[in-house]
Amino acid sequence: MQPLNIGLIGTGFMGKAHAIALKAAPTVFNLPAMPVCDLLAEVDDDLAARKARELGFARATGDWKALVTDPQVDVVDICAPNFLHKEMALAAIAADKHVYAEKPLALSSADAQEMVEAAERAGVKTLVGFNYIRNSATQLAREIIASGEIGELIHFRGRHNEDYMSDPARPLDWHTQRVTAGAGALGDVGSHILNMAEYLTGQRISEVFGQLQTVIPRRPLPDGSGGMGEVENDDQAQALLRFDGGLIGNIETSRVATGRKMGLAYTITGTKGSIIFDQERMSELQLYKQEGPEGRRGFSMLLVGPEHPDYAAFSPAPGHGLGYNDQKIIEIRDLVEGIVGNKPLYPDFHEAWRVNRMIDAIELSHAEGTWMKV
Amino acid sequence: MQPLNIGLIGTGFMGKAHAIALKAAPTVFNLPAMPVCDLLAEVDDDLAARKARELGFARATGDWKALVTDPQVDVVDICAPNFLHKEMALAAIAADKHVYAEKPLALSSADAQEMVEAAERAGVKTLVGFNYIRNSATQLAREIIASGEIGELIHFRGRHNEDYMSDPARPLDWHTQRVTAGAGALGDVGSHILNMAEYLTGQRISEVFGQLQTVIPRRPLPDGSGGMGEVENDDQAQALLRFDGGLIGNIETSRVATGRKMGLAYTITGTKGSIIFDQERMSELQLYKQEGPEGRRGFSMLLVGPEHPDYAAFSPAPGHGLGYNDQKIIEIRDLVEGIVGNKPLYPDFHEAWRVNRMIDAIELSHAEGTWMKV
Amino acid sequence: MQPLNIGLIGTGFMGKAHAIALKAAPTVFNLPAMPVCDLLAEVDDDLAARKARELGFARATGDWKALVTDPQVDVVDICAPNFLHKEMALAAIAADKHVYAEKPLALSSADAQEMVEAAERAGVKTLVGFNYIRNSATQLAREIIASGEIGELIHFRGRHNEDYMSDPARPLDWHTQRVTAGAGALGDVGSHILNMAEYLTGQRISEVFGQLQTVIPRRPLPDGSGGMGEVENDDQAQALLRFDGGLIGNIETSRVATGRKMGLAYTITGTKGSIIFDQERMSELQLYKQEGPEGRRGFSMLLVGPEHPDYAAFSPAPGHGLGYNDQKIIEIRDLVEGIVGNKPLYPDFHEAWRVNRMIDAIELSHAEGTWMKV
Amino acid sequence: MQPLNIGLIGTGFMGKAHAIALKAAPTVFNLPAMPVCDLLAEVDDDLAARKARELGFARATGDWKALVTDPQVDVVDICAPNFLHKEMALAAIAADKHVYAEKPLALSSADAQEMVEAAERAGVKTLVGFNYIRNSATQLAREIIASGEIGELIHFRGRHNEDYMSDPARPLDWHTQRVTAGAGALGDVGSHILNMAEYLTGQRISEVFGQLQTVIPRRPLPDGSGGMGEVENDDQAQALLRFDGGLIGNIETSRVATGRKMGLAYTITGTKGSIIFDQERMSELQLYKQEGPEGRRGFSMLLVGPEHPDYAAFSPAPGHGLGYNDQKIIEIRDLVEGIVGNKPLYPDFHEAWRVNRMIDAIELSHAEGTWMKV
Repeated sequence: MQPLNIGLIGTGFMGKAHAIALKAAPTVFNLPAMPVCDLLAEVDDDLAARKARELGFARATGDWKALVTDPQVDVVDICAPNFLHKEMALAAIAADKHVYAEKPLALSSADAQEMVEAAERAGVKTLVGFNYIRNSATQLAREIIASGEIGELIHFRGRHNEDYMSDPARPLDWHTQRVTAGAGALGDVGSHILNMAEYLTGQRISEVFGQLQTVIPRRPLPDGSGGMGEVENDDQAQALLRFDGGLIGNIETSRVATGRKMGLAYTITGTKGSIIFDQERMSELQLYKQEGPEGRRGFSMLLVGPEHPDYAAFSPAPGHGLGYNDQKIIEIRDLVEGIVGNKPLYPDFHEAWRVNRMIDAIELSHAEGTWMKV
Repeated sequence: MQPLNIGLIGTGFMGKAHAIALKAAPTVFNLPAMPVCDLLAEVDDDLAARKARELGFARATGDWKALVTDPQVDVVDICAPNFLHKEMALAAIAADKHVYAEKPLALSSADAQEMVEAAERAGVKTLVGFNYIRNSATQLAREIIASGEIGELIHFRGRHNEDYMSDPARPLDWHTQRVTAGAGALGDVGSHILNMAEYLTGQRISEVFGQLQTVIPRRPLPDGSGGMGEVENDDQAQALLRFDGGLIGNIETSRVATGRKMGLAYTITGTKGSIIFDQERMSELQLYKQEGPEGRRGFSMLLVGPEHPDYAAFSPAPGHGLGYNDQKIIEIRDLVEGIVGNKPLYPDFHEAWRVNRMIDAIELSHAEGTWMKV
Repeated sequence: MQPLNIGLIGTGFMGKAHAIALKAAPTVFNLPAMPVCDLLAEVDDDLAARKARELGFARATGDWKALVTDPQVDVVDICAPNFLHKEMALAAIAADKHVYAEKPLALSSADAQEMVEAAERAGVKTLVGFNYIRNSATQLAREIIASGEIGELIHFRGRHNEDYMSDPARPLDWHTQRVTAGAGALGDVGSHILNMAEYLTGQRISEVFGQLQTVIPRRPLPDGSGGMGEVENDDQAQALLRFDGGLIGNIETSRVATGRKMGLAYTITGTKGSIIFDQERMSELQLYKQEGPEGRRGFSMLLVGPEHPDYAAFSPAPGHGLGYNDQKIIEIRDLVEGIVGNKPLYPDFHEAWRVNRMIDAIELSHAEGTWMKV
Repeated sequence: MQPLNIGLIGTGFMGKAHAIALKAAPTVFNLPAMPVCDLLAEVDDDLAARKARELGFARATGDWKALVTDPQVDVVDICAPNFLHKEMALAAIAADKHVYAEKPLALSSADAQEMVEAAERAGVKTLVGFNYIRNSATQLAREIIASGEIGELIHFRGRHNEDYMSDPARPLDWHTQRVTAGAGALGDVGSHILNMAEYLTGQRISEVFGQLQTVIPRRPLPDGSGGMGEVENDDQAQALLRFDGGLIGNIETSRVATGRKMGLAYTITGTKGSIIFDQERMSELQLYKQEGPEGRRGFSMLLVGPEHPDYAAFSPAPGHGLGYNDQKIIEIRDLVEGIVGNKPLYPDFHEAWRVNRMIDAIELSHAEGTWMKV
């Protein structure tokens, strides 16, 4: 089978998740090409070599610039810190590589736009890692909505709340500074729910009204000096939404929501039914349908199984459960199929740019106190 | 024991609930006076007589004006349709009666203000039936918050969604018209969550940004003619909130939220913990506290029991469950104690007027597209 | 309306619950007679007088023997300690009174049999307070089963676990001694699930295989002397069951099940569907039906509402929630209707005797190590 | 790194799951050797070749006997139908291979004993695929129990119910016949909960009292002739248990439990707390501890995270969720570490033999109607 050589940059949380998925995907799915863990880049040669051994890559380099121009590499897979995405992606595109990047794509919509335009000019494929949309239960939610089973949509409520910054003793880091993160919770986890709102509903968010808050405005400096520094972006944000199909809704996002670990959740109401989902119980979907005798109506707990999107490749038996990394395996399948089959990838840089524009619009709306078009 | 004679106007859903609670309250609680089901008013003498028999009232009248001036009546209990609240309450106050009225107090804040001023001038006691705040689990939530157990509050999310108008074939009725209902879902069920937001947090909502929508703009005329008429108020509404203590939050409300029957719920996040509550599971409260080893932290499901507010009067055994009408029994206890002990009642007309002002502010904000002070 | 005079003996947990329900029932339901809280008996005159005031009874006595023969009393309502049930019931029957007694009816099946025979000879009505079977959700479960909606029953799993004796420092009391309690957890809470198993399935338990255990064999003496005494009955018990219709199943019961407060629960499997219920969430029933497309099958959470048995009398609005005492209100309705209409009452002494026989069979099976016929 | 060559026999549900895990494990964990997907056997050469391509094996054979004696193969991984386990394992052991076999190990305890003795004589390592014990939440449950956090264990309730045979139109197949399956639900899914009972509690099941039932005694013949044939083993089974540490408990198992897809669940009660787990929500564990103020006690929902066993290798972020195949990845880690480090493997053939003995004892107890020692 034709190989598809992957060059991976960055081996933190997401880099390892990509590596696991790259290894497993060809066994889970019948892929049209074999993704090969070819070249790995880290901040220096030693770390790169060690990580290549750990994660099963054939080659290693301490220089990501060498990776993006390496003639053997077909796809540059960017799992480096967010503030480096732009430079790396532009360099990869310049070298005519397809680019698979983690979210958020960029720190601002201006940066994202530049990346979109470069990719379109070069004609390379792009994919951004909004992996939660690939979970079977969420794909099922989209199917149910698209089929009209719950009627016309009338309300979307979404949130992505976590508590990783809820301890005020946690020092400043890249998350908290404009130059390395752009927006705060809104950019980091909020980007997931914004993308998912459009993915699920099939409608575009056309206008937003936002409110942001930095709950812990000063945190210890990371140098251990005992000094304090300023948090430059939001700890929590919320927005009202207007969609172009007439739907209204709202989103919330937080990095200080005590108790929430993987708090991506949505409730979607239609004229004939409703859907409720919570990523902390990622293998189930609650479905209500306004039909049948009233005394027998209730939210049904659908456990994902082989009748649902992409589940059967993991197990022929229902209810056995998918995990976080399985979502990445599905993402890899889409990446390989899209590149080999020259098909559109979703969400590509253009979609991710939309997310940046929504974030910008929410921030601007907050500042201006008015509805803002996306 | 001293009697406290109740004159009840209206015997629909709420009238019956009041009657049940009036009968049970003296046995559940040790009351300082005996509430007596004395006089009942309905739209005509026959119905009044029949309902008095059914609900256990001593006397009946087809003329509510006779009730409010009846010398034997101590408290006028208004369970008539919302658009009659104002006239009835003003008449009762003019006759120097204490007034116990169902929510919403009035169709507009101007009306509510007039009622507040009349009551204050007359020096009568008033109480408005926002009964959900009396549920043990919700009282417990307030206690936990007030004690600082979950730290400083940083986010409030509340909703009260139901689906009683989700069938588009349901005709126009009093709910849907301005002159009989004022606001739609926002006034009817939304009023509960607005009051509760302040009750729970101990903070005042100072500014709102609202969005309203009439999902089903035309419905069959109630005359069965087959003609259609216009729905004049909101089917669903949502708002971002600023509280005077710095807290932010949001609320949602709907009467077309398919699948939601008693969808009052809240999630309150503090710097040291969080609370989650859902009225459909009214006897439990989820509590997360950011303490102890990380591997043992999780939301605890507290089932209400005799350690929690007002539960022990119903049962000495934990987890046995309170129901909707039990909330009204607690409300009656508060009514009787407040009147006999000449203590402040909560929520009185003044508090209910606040709710009207919040509703007005949300509507105005929607129209203007800007934050609106309450 | 015709009065039905109630003479209540005992004012602990259950006595108060009966009083609350007696007060509320005529307003909740249209009863064919008016239950009157007429005479109350306690251990001495002073306590009786005080409790009569608190619970709203017209008359009081310190001598229960006077109550059972009082000519004005129509129904003797026995809420005294279990070991007194037999003597009181026999005296009441001898005085030709109807008898409404709390469960368990008697400490042994021999005693229960004597009571059944006396009642049948006298032709009085009897009712035993297995109140959980009157909850709307459980009545709904029975309806669903009886209608064949879930096919032929193939498995019953039931439990009633609580933790009221889980603290080993809790002294010996009436629960722990043979002469005052008979069986332990099995008699106290286990009796509920045994009765319910037959109520729900419409089948008789024909054979049992039991296992009992006293987890905390010695407890402090109640005299505070610091001495220890022997616990004489089971802290936990379990049994396999054979029903006369071919169904098999099992039950568990405990008074030391740490964390369980109102742990009555059942899972009933049929050939075409299943039902799951948990009394800690008493207003909901989970229903699975093996029909429709596989990808849309799941347990539906049915919130009780006016379409379900007896709910509408409490509230016309769905999902508003019933509580523990509401079950007793339904029980009072059944008592009054049965007596006035001269209809069979369920569960009467005969049914309660069955429960005693099941308990005896489980204990005997435990001792013998073999299946035991009931 | 040293390779560990795997020879896989059988490529159904479990064969694919093994292959996925073999591919992913070296990236998830730092393994002391590299498991290599070397040789795959299927029923004929063509299928073997195709499956080797799909699942990523280097070589293929249509003859499993060639695989077990292949000099390059280090570990024979048996995922063939259960009735072939014995012959294959004995052949592999005879060839001095380590054996990794799916459960149930054998169709009878006599067969299992023969396999155990052969493996012990040969000194090869064995591992049986009771994968659910490797789930982080279940490992956590074991840790909590072993540490004494919930005190001394007093009750174990376990079940493994599914509904894969609930449709009576499903024909006879290998599951239903003695010669291919041995016991029915009890052997297939029941074996998991029996093993898990001992794994979790750290106690041995010493005596059982069993009850089995074939709910659908006749099914269509698989030849499509329209004829019916006899089901030879149990559709559902239940047993009371005595453990050697004094603990009592019960288990249930079914293949006709309508609505249950992955219905492995347990409730374990100790003197100081309780644990509840349900594999359909495999990433959470409910924990109750009898400590702290009574009004703050409740079951805590612990979402698995990096503080819990083996989770951190999959993700550094809490609550992100493990899936079914992740359990197999952990199993592979244990296999490799055990073989390379010459450490005991759990559960090995000896443990699996215990499961067979428990199954035999339950069946015999059912036949005899008495407690049976394991």
